[in-house]
Amino acid sequence: MIILNLLNKGGLVLKSMRDIAREAGVSLATVSRYINKNGYVSEEAKKKIEKIVKQTNYTPNELARAIFSKNSKIIGLLVPNISNPYFNELALIIEEYVSKHGYSIFLCNTNDDPTKEREYINVLQGHRVAGIFTVRAQCKKEYELFTVPVVSFESIISDDIVTIVTDNYQGGKLAFDHLKSNGCNHLLHITGLDFSKAVHDRYQGFLDEAKKEGMSVDIIRFESDFQRKMLEANIKTLENIEKYDGVFVFNDIAAATVIRYFKQKNVHIPDEVQVIGFDNSYIGEFLFPSLTTIEQSVQEVGNKMADALIHLINGETIENKIIMIQPNVLVRESTKAKKE
Amino acid sequence: MIILNLLNKGGLVLKSMRDIAREAGVSLATVSRYINKNGYVSEEAKKKIEKIVKQTNYTPNELARAIFSKNSKIIGLLVPNISNPYFNELALIIEEYVSKHGYSIFLCNTNDDPTKEREYINVLQGHRVAGIFTVRAQCKKEYELFTVPVVSFESIISDDIVTIVTDNYQGGKLAFDHLKSNGCNHLLHITGLDFSKAVHDRYQGFLDEAKKEGMSVDIIRFESDFQRKMLEANIKTLENIEKYDGVFVFNDIAAATVIRYFKQKNVHIPDEVQVIGFDNSYIGEFLFPSLTTIEQSVQEVGNKMADALIHLINGETIENKIIMIQPNVLVRESTKAKKE
Repeated sequence: MIILNLLNKGGLVLKSMRDIAREAGVSLATVSRYINKNGYVSEEAKKKIEKIVKQTNYTPNELARAIFSKNSKIIGLLVPNISNPYFNELALIIEEYVSKHGYSIFLCNTNDDPTKEREYINVLQGHRVAGIFTVRAQCKKEYELFTVPVVSFESIISDDIVTIVTDNYQGGKLAFDHLKSNGCNHLLHITGLDFSKAVHDRYQGFLDEAKKEGMSVDIIRFESDFQRKMLEANIKTLENIEKYDGVFVFNDIAAATVIRYFKQKNVHIPDEVQVIGFDNSYIGEFLFPSLTTIEQSVQEVGNKMADALIHLINGETIENKIIMIQPNVLVRESTKAKKE
Repeated sequence: MIILNLLNKGGLVLKSMRDIAREAGVSLATVSRYINKNGYVSEEAKKKIEKIVKQTNYTPNELARAIFSKNSKIIGLLVPNISNPYFNELALIIEEYVSKHGYSIFLCNTNDDPTKEREYINVLQGHRVAGIFTVRAQCKKEYELFTVPVVSFESIISDDIVTIVTDNYQGGKLAFDHLKSNGCNHLLHITGLDFSKAVHDRYQGFLDEAKKEGMSVDIIRFESDFQRKMLEANIKTLENIEKYDGVFVFNDIAAATVIRYFKQKNVHIPDEVQVIGFDNSYIGEFLFPSLTTIEQSVQEVGNKMADALIHLINGETIENKIIMIQPNVLVRESTKAKKE
């Protein structure tokens, strides 16, 4: 048996297994069969082993098991920024789902840095994880070379990799329609870092819909993504925004800083200006006024990602590689429309 | 050489190493010495190998290396709730620090559930991580049996384990002194889940100081820790809090819900009621009015945790096992005192 041979060479695990065998009064092979769940072990032997295992706090060597059975119970989850409330809520939902299937999540924060993303891919590959979730991926080639299943959110990596995407273009259109039907005439769109296709599509949908309606839109770009002192980092770009009566912001956390800016300037929301965000992250509920937003259901995104990866790990194929999520308007206090 | 023997038995890695050796025109032993950095490899051979390694996207088998060299470059970080902004900021700081020493962080979310915490400890132990950071640990015995270095924040696990703790009792006293010196007479303290010693100490410090000054304090407990709909989950407990003129809340995210409650009721902050939180998480800066808080510097906590664990991993000893952080009052808009 290969595992046993290996363990003989390795020493590290053998010592523990031999100890257990001696103390339980059973053979080493029996302990190995028990630990690796690959062969008959009598009920009597099981009981003896379990008693000793409990006493000695023995942990099966997941490393050795992963190398030879290719059966690691770890899934890597790469997110661009765990301090964005949308991504950390997504992580919680995915974790809850996969834990029901016996998997644990190792969360890796790439900080939107391709070098760090590449390092994490290597580390996860080295640890022979069962699969990877990746959010807003920037490294593409690395995932294509990866030999275990990958499910992506936001970034389309290749034709072979299952990707969950929100219809961000449609979301941008919905934001425009909501502000227009609420009577806004002077529109501003605040957009974010330009490498994100999701952020770009929100922008394009908003602009195209405005053009169709013959309205012009001014644009401001936040160069600093979410972090402490976000308002301070971007405040210069917000000067003179009091002249607008409708603002669409690329995500909720950026919208929170815009709302705080207006309140500091004593501009009343929603009477003087209406503000709409994107995501439906929980921060929107803590604000006063609470934030109207284009919701991309984090529950739906998380469940679809987890469901797809579990299917792939189990060796099933998924025909439709692009899974589209439809956004909707979630009306709260920062725009005029009545609650639905 | 043990690693080579092992790889011969295993097959999985050997195939890649043999491929590299063949394509580079060098011996398998040379490739092994190169990959495992344990022996002489000529400059010429190095160049040949590196060229092929680059082309074939070879990842050294971290698993095999970790088993035999006990030299995994992964550190586990267990946090009770990644959606608490204090903990996710802490994770970012720790990660930045240890990455300079060549380590990656696997973030594990225990959700304050001892069963989940235990599972993660087992998984990390199975993967032979280099060390563990644990925040608000509930399982104690498991860490004591752990063979690699552990650094704890908030929970004192045993006399042997290095622990970073904020002087939460002192923090509670500071909160009382601040509200009293600002003229508050009708005090309320909102506390949290009762298993947390940190939360209990904040409560006790606040109460003891009030007692010393001959003032009474009413107490409310939030049964639901931070999560979406936190306000809705705890709103019943907040009925009739308009009668207080000073409120100390056990953490910032709970304080955010209290501020929103007062604003919904048209109670003016800080003129009618002053609110002070605890932590200095970034959410406090997004609120209007922004939140006065008892700061336990996340930068200081993160740096001290990381510094201690790196020292322990390097085989050094730390004499003083309890490292105390002193809190301070960070005055913003939700209390009357002028900004410092």
